[in-house]
Amino acid sequence: MKQVVIGVDIGGTFTKYGIVDKDGNVLIEGSMPTDTFDNVNDYQKALFGELEKAIKPIKNDIEIKGVGFGAPNGNYYKGTIENAANLKWKGVIHFAELFKKYFNVPVVLTNDANAAAIGEGLYGGAKGLRDYIVITLGTGLGSGLVANGELIYGFDGFAGELGHIMVEPNGRQCGCGKLGCLETYCSATGIKRTAFKLMCDMSVDSELRKYNYHELTSEIIFEAAKHNDLIAIEAFKYTGYILGIKLADAVAHTTPEAIFLFGGLAKSGEIIFKPTIESFEKHLLPIYRNKIKILPSGLQNKNIAVMGASALIWKELGK
Amino acid sequence: MKQVVIGVDIGGTFTKYGIVDKDGNVLIEGSMPTDTFDNVNDYQKALFGELEKAIKPIKNDIEIKGVGFGAPNGNYYKGTIENAANLKWKGVIHFAELFKKYFNVPVVLTNDANAAAIGEGLYGGAKGLRDYIVITLGTGLGSGLVANGELIYGFDGFAGELGHIMVEPNGRQCGCGKLGCLETYCSATGIKRTAFKLMCDMSVDSELRKYNYHELTSEIIFEAAKHNDLIAIEAFKYTGYILGIKLADAVAHTTPEAIFLFGGLAKSGEIIFKPTIESFEKHLLPIYRNKIKILPSGLQNKNIAVMGASALIWKELGK
Repeated sequence: MKQVVIGVDIGGTFTKYGIVDKDGNVLIEGSMPTDTFDNVNDYQKALFGELEKAIKPIKNDIEIKGVGFGAPNGNYYKGTIENAANLKWKGVIHFAELFKKYFNVPVVLTNDANAAAIGEGLYGGAKGLRDYIVITLGTGLGSGLVANGELIYGFDGFAGELGHIMVEPNGRQCGCGKLGCLETYCSATGIKRTAFKLMCDMSVDSELRKYNYHELTSEIIFEAAKHNDLIAIEAFKYTGYILGIKLADAVAHTTPEAIFLFGGLAKSGEIIFKPTIESFEKHLLPIYRNKIKILPSGLQNKNIAVMGASALIWKELGK
Repeated sequence: MKQVVIGVDIGGTFTKYGIVDKDGNVLIEGSMPTDTFDNVNDYQKALFGELEKAIKPIKNDIEIKGVGFGAPNGNYYKGTIENAANLKWKGVIHFAELFKKYFNVPVVLTNDANAAAIGEGLYGGAKGLRDYIVITLGTGLGSGLVANGELIYGFDGFAGELGHIMVEPNGRQCGCGKLGCLETYCSATGIKRTAFKLMCDMSVDSELRKYNYHELTSEIIFEAAKHNDLIAIEAFKYTGYILGIKLADAVAHTTPEAIFLFGGLAKSGEIIFKPTIESFEKHLLPIYRNKIKILPSGLQNKNIAVMGASALIWKELGK
């Protein structure tokens, strides 16, 4: 009997899951919609049905040791999902406790970026590191900070929200209600907003000018940058410049050995890493310079959120 | 025989020391100059002589268990003082190792603000807290971050330098060589710089206008503010505004249960705490609001650096 865990990533639109062994091999994976369920009980019931069906072919060969969830506003200490903007279930949901009726094994939960950081440590580029940070660059910017070998959950279970540190006091409007948050600059959405500002500020022609706000994506900007589109290149430079400053500030807090970037933007390679690292080194306190690596995630082509959720529960079982 | 440790705070001008028991009682304290010793060996010899003399009256009643040092650019992992701008001993000094020849007990070293954070946890307001931050507002701004019950030293032993996170990309010149660092705004020196800017920007009369740059101090600004001097009041407001933003960002990193402010500025009471807390709450991500305390240090009227250095070695001995 192979020992496995179930890792589940709850996104606003889709839920992804995987049956994962301790070495990070995903034996089975799948997905189902999230947003068709107005009620969390209906959702959990459907998820259980989905998992049962998925597991069936290998049921007699595996022993399920636990279930780990990554979810927006997921609280590790309480197993709750609290007032998640992208989910239909409002208020404080005692998610882990509710789900225990389906599997009689430990169930743990944290937010998706924290899960990603644990996954990077167990399966990815941070293996063996005691101090590192993972930044997920998606629609928003998520982060998980590890110091002294432990994920920093903070006193209330919600630590590691670098997407909401301030870039500019009266800067861009953020979904959280504040102004100038980092994720409004450094994320797939952030670089699109930057491209629109640059189409205003600069006069050069650009392939980006033919897209409206709904049409433009970070992938289109990346393609344009590869064709030497000046506005697209400048958008990446500016994104890296801001990200470099804020990663340098993060170093002044916890001084990681490496910072891992994950997600669509991070896949753009040199065009984002070069300006980020340049700005990072320039803005680091001199004692930190040329010591700290900024690297693509070691799980870049895998489902880091599912891997992270499974790493979370493996870590819990090992305690 | 009472078990005690020696706590030593190495400052650029003076060295302060105390013989401290486990409850934080300072049995003996004293000080000697730092900057008259060009050579670290001469300094250590003089410090040993000074300590021997101080201990003499109670020598037969105590057992010295260890020595803890707080020093600028002190590295906990290596016991070194590395390129400290305010000390005459240049390069990398293997301070702890060198000092072991004088006392045959464990010798540990960290930077002064990290020591302060450990002291706050052992003797001060952070007793029993697993997640907290200590900010020392002196000539500069120092910080010590504790998460999961452990001080964050970072991978290289130099973590917790919030004095050098960025307020403005092209802001005030900092002693570290960068521009716009937090300590150029929020510290005794920072508020003086702010007062000079406000004397430029504002037209109202002010008692501060009679002081030149060398004469003006944060204490003078505090006294003026108590007399309702508009520029002095505005200087405190601005200092608190900036500090509040950056403490809100620190919460997004490690989410402490409380943040303790220590030092001259922190002694100004409401006039600094009120604008700091207002700005802090405004700039916090909503999920953190009304949860996190900003408090004066519980060691405010004690020598936090000596207490911290002694707490550091007590903590080490308890490992």
